[in-house]
Parts: sequence; C-alpha cells; structure tokens
Amino acid sequence: METHLQQQLEGLRSALLSMAALVEEQIARAVTAFMERDVDLCDQVIAGDGPIDAMELEIDEQCIRLLALQHPIARDLRFVAASMKITIDLERLGDIAVNISKKTKQLTGLPNLKPLVDLPRMADLSQSMVKDSLNAFVRGDEQLAMDVCDRDEEVNQLQDQIFEELLAFMKEDSGSVPQAMQLIFISRHIERLADHATNIAEGVVYFSQGRVIKHHAVEDPTPSPIRPESGGPA
Amino acid sequence: METHLQQQLEGLRSALLSMAALVEEQIARAVTAFMERDVDLCDQVIAGDGPIDAMELEIDEQCIRLLALQHPIARDLRFVAASMKITIDLERLGDIAVNISKKTKQLTGLPNLKPLVDLPRMADLSQSMVKDSLNAFVRGDEQLAMDVCDRDEEVNQLQDQIFEELLAFMKEDSGSVPQAMQLIFISRHIERLADHATNIAEGVVYFSQGRVIKHHAVEDPTPSPIRPESGGPA
Repeated sequence: METHLQQQLEGLRSALLSMAALVEEQIARAVTAFMERDVDLCDQVIAGDGPIDAMELEIDEQCIRLLALQHPIARDLRFVAASMKITIDLERLGDIAVNISKKTKQLTGLPNLKPLVDLPRMADLSQSMVKDSLNAFVRGDEQLAMDVCDRDEEVNQLQDQIFEELLAFMKEDSGSVPQAMQLIFISRHIERLADHATNIAEGVVYFSQGRVIKHHAVEDPTPSPIRPESGGPA
Repeated sequence: METHLQQQLEGLRSALLSMAALVEEQIARAVTAFMERDVDLCDQVIAGDGPIDAMELEIDEQCIRLLALQHPIARDLRFVAASMKITIDLERLGDIAVNISKKTKQLTGLPNLKPLVDLPRMADLSQSMVKDSLNAFVRGDEQLAMDVCDRDEEVNQLQDQIFEELLAFMKEDSGSVPQAMQLIFISRHIERLADHATNIAEGVVYFSQGRVIKHHAVEDPTPSPIRPESGGPA
C-alpha cells in the first residue's frame, strides 16, 4: 500500500510531467513556426504560455504543502527541492518558445536571406536536449542527463558559427541587417533552450544522487545527517 | 533564547546576504569596466564568478539540511523555498556580469560609436533594481519589491530604443556592425539584470505573504493547512 508521502510524490511527479509535455509542445510548435514562417502558429504559441505559468505556481504550492505536511527526507526531499528548481527552467523554456515566436513574426515580411544550414541543425540538437533532459528526469536516468550536459558545447559552437555567418552578411550588405538581427536573436534563444536543458539535466543528477555536477564541480555527497536512501518517485 | 530553527534561518539569511553582496559587486564592476572599457577589470569580473557558483551550492545544501532537520512551517518554510529560488537568480546575475565583461573585451579595440545616452541610464536603472530587490529581500519589504517590479517596463522601453538606434547605425554604415552588435548584446544582458531583479522581487512578496505576483497574477493565499505566521527571519 502506498503511503500519503508516496501518493503526493507521485502527484508531484505527474504534475511535472504534464508541465514538461506542454513545454515540449510549445517549443516544437515555435521551431516549426519559425522554419515555416507560420504567423498563425506563432500566435498560438504566444497564447499558449499562460497554462505553463499557472502550472509553475501550482507545482510550487504542491511542493510547499508536501514539505509542510509530509516532511520528506533524503532522496525524496532532494526530489522535491529539485522539482522547485526544475519548474523555473520549464517556465523559462516556455518563455523562450514565446520569444522565438515573437521574433519569427518580426521576421516575416522581410526578404529571405540565404538559408542557414546550421540553424535547423542547432534547433534539432537543442530540442533533443530538452526532450532528453526531461526523459532523464522522468526515469531518473543519470547517464542520459550527463549525456545532455556533454552536448551543450556543440550547440555553443553552432551558435558561434551562425553568428559569424550573419555578421558577414550584415557587413557585406547593410540591407540584410534587420533580417540578420532577428535571426541572431532567434539563434540565441535556441541556444538558451540548450542551456536550460543542461540546467535540468544537472538537477536530475542532483536529485538522484545528491551529487553536484553544476558549475562542472563533480563532487561526492558531503557527509551529513541526510543520507541517500532507496525509494522515491523516480 | 533562539531555537535551533531560528539560528539556522539566521545562518541561511546571512549566507544569502553574502552571496547577494558578491553579486552586486560583480555587477557594479562589470558595468564600470564596460563604461570605461577597462579590460583588466573585465578579467577580474570573469575570474570572480567561481565563489558565487560555490555559494549557490552551499546555500542549497543549507536549505536541504534545514528542511530535513528542522521541519520549518508556514512563513519559515516559504522563506527556505524562496531562498532556493533566489539563489538561481543570484547565480545567473553573476553569469550576466561575466557575459557583460566578455562582450566588453570584444568591444575594446573596435572604433567607438557615437555615445549612447540610453545605455548608461539603463545600466543605472537595472543596477538600482538589483540593489533594491536584494534590500527588499533582506528587510522583507514588500512595498519596495512591488516598486522594483513596476520599474521593469521602463528598462524594456530603454532597451527597445537602444536597439532601434543601433539598428539605424548598422543600416547606415555596415562598418559599424561589429561594434553595434556587441553593444546590442551588452544592452540585452543589462536588460536581463532587471528581469532577474524582478524575479527576486516577486520571490520577496511570495515568501513574506505567501502571495503570488509572478506572471502578473496577484492572488490571495489559497486556504491550506499552511497558514502565514508571524516571526521568521525577515
């Protein structure tokens, strides 16, 4: 039989999954809307942010209630703490989807630049990082989480290449400045998707092992009264 | 006589104050280094980020330990929860100071553009928002926190003006593209200082009243077993 604590942890996990699913969908729609310069889809993304904001607040309250009434310890406590941190990244991922859509709208109507092959590649990579970081969270899969962190550097390199390419366009032809600027902003937003995926992945390692890989400081758990235990929602 | 809980909350509060002081100093140095194109100071800012990252991790562990051992409730619990959220913003404010310094270094050596009056003004405003959001946190001053949130719109407007001005430079003279691009990036970083200050200010309202003003949804506390109580560290 499940305890109240287990039930509430399961409820928290399922709320986080719903929020994550919504965020992933918003990102996918924002990227499609950008690739296809689909203004209607942009508007749908912009309108779709409200439920994500509301979910962050609900999940925070769920965590507060769980902490106040169930006093989780060890791994369960770390899971609740990580949940409160992960909602911040999920909410900001949602904001980035909105920002991509706003910039895409500003882009439509302007003449097209030469297609940038690196931008769709970076978008694919960032989206896969978001997807995998959320999967790693759901499954408590530390290996997948570490793998997400490793991929961030590739996105940063693509971002640098895209920036250099767009800078060259602007220097050659000042008429391309408005489009190139929007593309630079969009590429930075896409790069930030990967940054948040990395934050989430770091959180997964933190809650599953009490082990910190943030800021590239891989450390063993500090001896403390709070020892990792088996169990928990992952 | 102070209880263990009160002592530990005081310890948490003082750790947050130290982190906040360090972050404020990094931002002030990054802005000065940008205004004066001081490469040495940029390098100091870049080198100074490590202690901030370390403090985020320490404070998180302090929160986990406090939750596990002291079972804070009501206002104290909200303070601990808000602390775990605020460290994220503090750490990212530190990252932004580093990013401003990196961009400033890329800017030095390039010919100067016409001075932008709005950029120092926006920097002043953003810095004052960061300062006030942290003061609001220290004093639990909800009014000051609301005031910070109100100022965010002015920063956004300045950012739009700066962007339009720089875009005009680039269209007129493609030779100005590299400098103008760096200035656009720096102005966006400065604008993000204000965004994080706003997040912190929203957190202050949350922990002092259990009242949510995030996402512009001002709500009364939901009736729940966790009622606001007097006391706590603010």
